[in-house]
Amino acid sequence: MGLASDITNRDARAVSRLLSWIEDNDPRAPAELKEIYRHSGNSYLLGITGPPGAGKSTLADRLISHYRAANLRVGVLAFDPSSPFSGGAVLGDRIRMQQHATDSGVFIRSMANRNWPGGIGRAAVECARVLDAFGCAFIIVETVGVGQGDVDVARLAYTTLLVVTPAAGDKIQAMKAGVIEAADIVVLNKADLPDAEHAAKSLEMILGIHPRGGWQVPLVRAVAREGEGTGDVADAIDRHRRFIKQSGALEEKKQEGLRNHLLDIVHRKCDEALRLRMTSDKELDSYAERLFRGAADPYSLAEEIIRKEIKI
Amino acid sequence: MGLASDITNRDARAVSRLLSWIEDNDPRAPAELKEIYRHSGNSYLLGITGPPGAGKSTLADRLISHYRAANLRVGVLAFDPSSPFSGGAVLGDRIRMQQHATDSGVFIRSMANRNWPGGIGRAAVECARVLDAFGCAFIIVETVGVGQGDVDVARLAYTTLLVVTPAAGDKIQAMKAGVIEAADIVVLNKADLPDAEHAAKSLEMILGIHPRGGWQVPLVRAVAREGEGTGDVADAIDRHRRFIKQSGALEEKKQEGLRNHLLDIVHRKCDEALRLRMTSDKELDSYAERLFRGAADPYSLAEEIIRKEIKI
Repeated sequence: MGLASDITNRDARAVSRLLSWIEDNDPRAPAELKEIYRHSGNSYLLGITGPPGAGKSTLADRLISHYRAANLRVGVLAFDPSSPFSGGAVLGDRIRMQQHATDSGVFIRSMANRNWPGGIGRAAVECARVLDAFGCAFIIVETVGVGQGDVDVARLAYTTLLVVTPAAGDKIQAMKAGVIEAADIVVLNKADLPDAEHAAKSLEMILGIHPRGGWQVPLVRAVAREGEGTGDVADAIDRHRRFIKQSGALEEKKQEGLRNHLLDIVHRKCDEALRLRMTSDKELDSYAERLFRGAADPYSLAEEIIRKEIKI
Repeated sequence: MGLASDITNRDARAVSRLLSWIEDNDPRAPAELKEIYRHSGNSYLLGITGPPGAGKSTLADRLISHYRAANLRVGVLAFDPSSPFSGGAVLGDRIRMQQHATDSGVFIRSMANRNWPGGIGRAAVECARVLDAFGCAFIIVETVGVGQGDVDVARLAYTTLLVVTPAAGDKIQAMKAGVIEAADIVVLNKADLPDAEHAAKSLEMILGIHPRGGWQVPLVRAVAREGEGTGDVADAIDRHRRFIKQSGALEEKKQEGLRNHLLDIVHRKCDEALRLRMTSDKELDSYAERLFRGAADPYSLAEEIIRKEIKI
């Protein structure tokens, strides 16, 4: 075999190449992923989410150092579904992490593609599998905190950290539903700022009323830039990991992930078949023609096409 | 008929209700949209895109007043696929437009749903049709300037305005591909700021090297907050409208929009059928079971499912 066996033999360049294939929806990817699949399933998936500027990348950087000190391999997938107007600001922030770039036990990939076929979720699950087969004990999946991606990532990760700052403390109640609910651990970063304790109090109050199946979401204070609190964050991750292992939630989450991935692949394959049939088919032109002439509405035509052409 | 005929009879509450049905993917929507279709196709679709804070809503507000002075009906669809962390800031900005709320010749709808089934494009095209049947001469489609939505909107609109400020002037070269390319008119808003002329110069240089099929994208200066330059923007829109009408590009754009909409509906219907079959089918459990046991990878299983169950 090609890339897949190179990856299990810990060839970082092969990892790079396969991640690009996933990103580009390259037709060569599925065969490699099939192979990858048999050699994966052992990594622990950590999600890091939170608003821009909260210090997610800095915290990820600290966690990498923490796990590397225990000689564990770490992978990072940093998704950036950012504004077309924001330029490279966010990616620039992540340069900090690149201090680990020469460490062969760390693999970091920043993914700025805004047009994930099928959303971030699909790409993340496949890329994580690749890093898994590469031997990573922990895979950190980070999003920039914009939109659906965060929810997708939280669904994928076994433990999700929500990173906030004291400045965001008051706003946290305004955060849309799903953001707090998706967090297993809340990290109050920049906890050395003057209004940190006030923010912590209101956060703890909010978290107190959001217990989830026996797990009380902890609030952990950190100053990631100074490296303070990294141990506490890692401890909270460990505790959550043990909790979901014992409660069976981890197994459930893994099974749900597998089932969703299967449905997703089926879906994508049908999609491709459908697109192919609709675009190669000259029939479509005659339908479109009727539409242009105003002889039919697209809803009735769609029904006709499905009945006559697709027969699903 | 119900809603559709109420809408063509200019009942704004019926418009509201049908837009909600589209938003909620309500099964009652398609029948109404079929009806709507026969009574629409006359509106001119204006897209407004640009980074947050550029003054898009203020400009939209000024354009509404401009068109209302000519007694034209105007509709606004303001899409906000914003960060789950941004709270209501963006929507708050749009409150300005609500001065027109009591004007029965104006219909404004702010759509903050982040989970458009099939992306903003699909919802926008259907919502625009509704406002079209409601008799709007102009429909302004505004996005908050985050991600794929802008590209979707530009694809839908006949004339797309990109609104920038002098502060963004230097950054404009860093804007990702597709943003400048999607603009038919660039509006330099807040043109009374001290560095405006410098920004204008560099913008004009960039636009000079982006001519598109005979259309030289103009740079229009405005101070939307003061109402300055609104007439110039409206003139530029008129010129572009005449240009694409004469060149045949408008007809092409309309046909492309219809064709995409048709494909989109076919797609969505297949999707629904597929989902239904995959979730109601007990067969899926046995496939998933093999996956959980590690007896098969999801890629091979997906192939098997398509071959045996779906037969597309």
